[in-house]
Amino acid sequence: MISEWLDASTLWMILDFIGSLAFAVSGIRLSSAKNFDVFGAYVVGLATAAGGGTIRDVLLGEHPYWMSSPAYLVSTGLALLMVWIWGGKLIRKVNTWFIFDTIGLAVFTVSGTAKTLALGWPWWTAVMMGTMTGAAGGVVRDILIGEVPLIFRKEIYASACIIGSLVYIIITCMFGNVVGRMGQIGGMETGATIIAGAVVIAVRLIAVKYQISLPHLHGEDDK
Amino acid sequence: MISEWLDASTLWMILDFIGSLAFAVSGIRLSSAKNFDVFGAYVVGLATAAGGGTIRDVLLGEHPYWMSSPAYLVSTGLALLMVWIWGGKLIRKVNTWFIFDTIGLAVFTVSGTAKTLALGWPWWTAVMMGTMTGAAGGVVRDILIGEVPLIFRKEIYASACIIGSLVYIIITCMFGNVVGRMGQIGGMETGATIIAGAVVIAVRLIAVKYQISLPHLHGEDDK
Amino acid sequence: MISEWLDASTLWMILDFIGSLAFAVSGIRLSSAKNFDVFGAYVVGLATAAGGGTIRDVLLGEHPYWMSSPAYLVSTGLALLMVWIWGGKLIRKVNTWFIFDTIGLAVFTVSGTAKTLALGWPWWTAVMMGTMTGAAGGVVRDILIGEVPLIFRKEIYASACIIGSLVYIIITCMFGNVVGRMGQIGGMETGATIIAGAVVIAVRLIAVKYQISLPHLHGEDDK
Repeated sequence: MISEWLDASTLWMILDFIGSLAFAVSGIRLSSAKNFDVFGAYVVGLATAAGGGTIRDVLLGEHPYWMSSPAYLVSTGLALLMVWIWGGKLIRKVNTWFIFDTIGLAVFTVSGTAKTLALGWPWWTAVMMGTMTGAAGGVVRDILIGEVPLIFRKEIYASACIIGSLVYIIITCMFGNVVGRMGQIGGMETGATIIAGAVVIAVRLIAVKYQISLPHLHGEDDK
Repeated sequence: MISEWLDASTLWMILDFIGSLAFAVSGIRLSSAKNFDVFGAYVVGLATAAGGGTIRDVLLGEHPYWMSSPAYLVSTGLALLMVWIWGGKLIRKVNTWFIFDTIGLAVFTVSGTAKTLALGWPWWTAVMMGTMTGAAGGVVRDILIGEVPLIFRKEIYASACIIGSLVYIIITCMFGNVVGRMGQIGGMETGATIIAGAVVIAVRLIAVKYQISLPHLHGEDDK
Repeated sequence: MISEWLDASTLWMILDFIGSLAFAVSGIRLSSAKNFDVFGAYVVGLATAAGGGTIRDVLLGEHPYWMSSPAYLVSTGLALLMVWIWGGKLIRKVNTWFIFDTIGLAVFTVSGTAKTLALGWPWWTAVMMGTMTGAAGGVVRDILIGEVPLIFRKEIYASACIIGSLVYIIITCMFGNVVGRMGQIGGMETGATIIAGAVVIAVRLIAVKYQISLPHLHGEDDK
C-alpha cells in the first residue's frame, strides 16, 4: 500500500492506536470535568477505549484483548499524560479530536464485525458486535460519569457503525466465494475493510455537517 | 394441551415472544420519554428484553440466546414499530401491557431457573439466575436511561420471581426422582413450569391489587 | 500461625468473610438511605460484596465463586439482618466498619491478584484484576444507587489496591524461583499475601489519616 515499509497490518495498528487514544482522551476529559481524580480519569479513559471491545469479547466467549497485550493500558496512559500536560490547549483542537475519534469508530466497528464473522456467527450478531465495539465504550463512559448515554439521544453515531458493519458484511458475503476461489481472501477483506471504514467516517462526517439526526419517538402521552 | 396443533413448546415460544415484546415496549416507552432517538429506544428496548437472559448466560458461560437466533431483535423491532405507529394509544392500554409484562416475568423466571438447574448448578444459583432472567432487564433499562432501578424501591416484582423460582425447584426436586423413574420427566417439568409460572403471575397480581410492598430499612441515622 | 487450631487458610476464610460482610453492610446502608426496600438493599449489598470478584471471574472466563458456594449470599443476608436489627447503632461504629472494610479491600485485592497470576496471565492483567476485585464492587454499588462512583473522586482507595497488588507480584516474581527450588512455594505465597495485604491496609490508613488524595485534572477549559 502506502509504501514498502508500511504494510496494511502496521497501518491498521497505527489507526487502532490513534482511535483508542482519541476514545481515552474523551473519557479523561469528561471525567475530569466531573472532578474525578487521576485514577478515576484513567479508569474512565480505559473503559471508553476498551469497553466496547471488552463487552464484545465477553459475549463471544473470548478473553478481552487487553488481558494479553498492554496496548490499551499504554495508550490510555499516554492520553492521561497529554491531557495533564496540555490540558485546555489540547481540548481546543476540537476538529483534530473529532477526526481521530471518527477514525477510532471506523476501526473498532470493522474489527468487531470481522472478528465476529471469523468466529462463525450470523450476520445480525456481527452487526451488533461491530456496533458495540465502536459505540459501547461511550455508553460505559457515560454511565461511569453519571450521565445519560449521549449516543442514545444525539448524532448519527451508532448508525454510522451499523451502516459500516452492514457494508463490510455485504462485501465479504457477495464477493467472498468468488474471490475465495481466486485465492485472494486476504485482499478481499482488506478491500471490505477500507470501504466499510470509509463508509463509517463518511456517514458520521455528513451527519455532523448537515446536522442529520434520527427521529425521536413519543412513548408517553405528549403534553 | 390446548389443541392438537398447539403443543407445549409452541405455546411456550408464543408466551416468550409476548413477554419479550412487553419488556421491549416498556424500555422503548421509558427511553422515548427521556428524549432518546429511535436507535437509543431500540437499544434500551432490546436491553430490557434480552438483558436479564444475557447476564445469566454470561455468568453460566453460555452464549446469549440472541446471538444464534434473531427472535429478540425481531420482537424489539416490532415493539418499536408499534410504539412509533400507535404511540399514546398503545400506552393507554395500561392493563393489557401489565398482563403481558407479567407473563414475560413468569416465562423468563421459569426458563432461567430451568436452564441453570439443567446445567447442574445448585438451587440457590438457580434462584438467582431465574430472578435475574426475569428482573435484571429492567435494572439495565433503568441504568441506561439514568434512573435509579425501580424494582429496588417499589412493588413486589423480583420477589415474585424468587417465589416462583423456589416453587419450580421444590416441585422438580421433590417429584424429580419419583417421576423420573416413571419415565415422565418431561411431563413433570411441564407441570412445574405451569405451576411456577402461575405463582409468579399470582404473586404479582395480588401484590399490585393490595398494594403490598416490602419493608424498607433505615441504614443511615434517621432524622 | 496464630495457634495450632487456626491455620492459614481458615484465618483467610475468616478475613474474607469479615471483608464481604463489611462490603455488604456498606451497600445495604447506602441503598437504604436511598429508600430501597429490603430486596433492593440485599441486591446492592450482594453486588458490593461479590461484584468485583464477579467481573474478574467473567473476564478470566471462570464461573463466579458464589455460583458454587453460598458464602456471599449468607454473609450478605447476615449483613442485612444486622442493619435491620441494630440500624443506627451499628452505623455509628464508623471506625470498626472502616477497619473491616479495609480488611476486605486487602483480602480481595490479594486474592484477585493471586488467582489471575495462577491462571498464567501477565502482571499488568493481575494488577487490574486485583484492583477490580477490591474496588469494582463499590463502583457497581454506586451505579445501582444512582451515584457517581465515589472511588473515582475521593480517597486513596483503588490506589491502595494497585500498590498492594504490585507488592504481591514483585515478591512472588523476585523470590518465586529461589523459593520454588527450595520447595516452599506455599510458604512464599503466604509471606507475599501477608506483606501485600498489610501494604493495602497501611496505604489506606495513612491516606485517610493524612487526608492524602490524588491530583485532579482539568480536562475542560477552566473557568
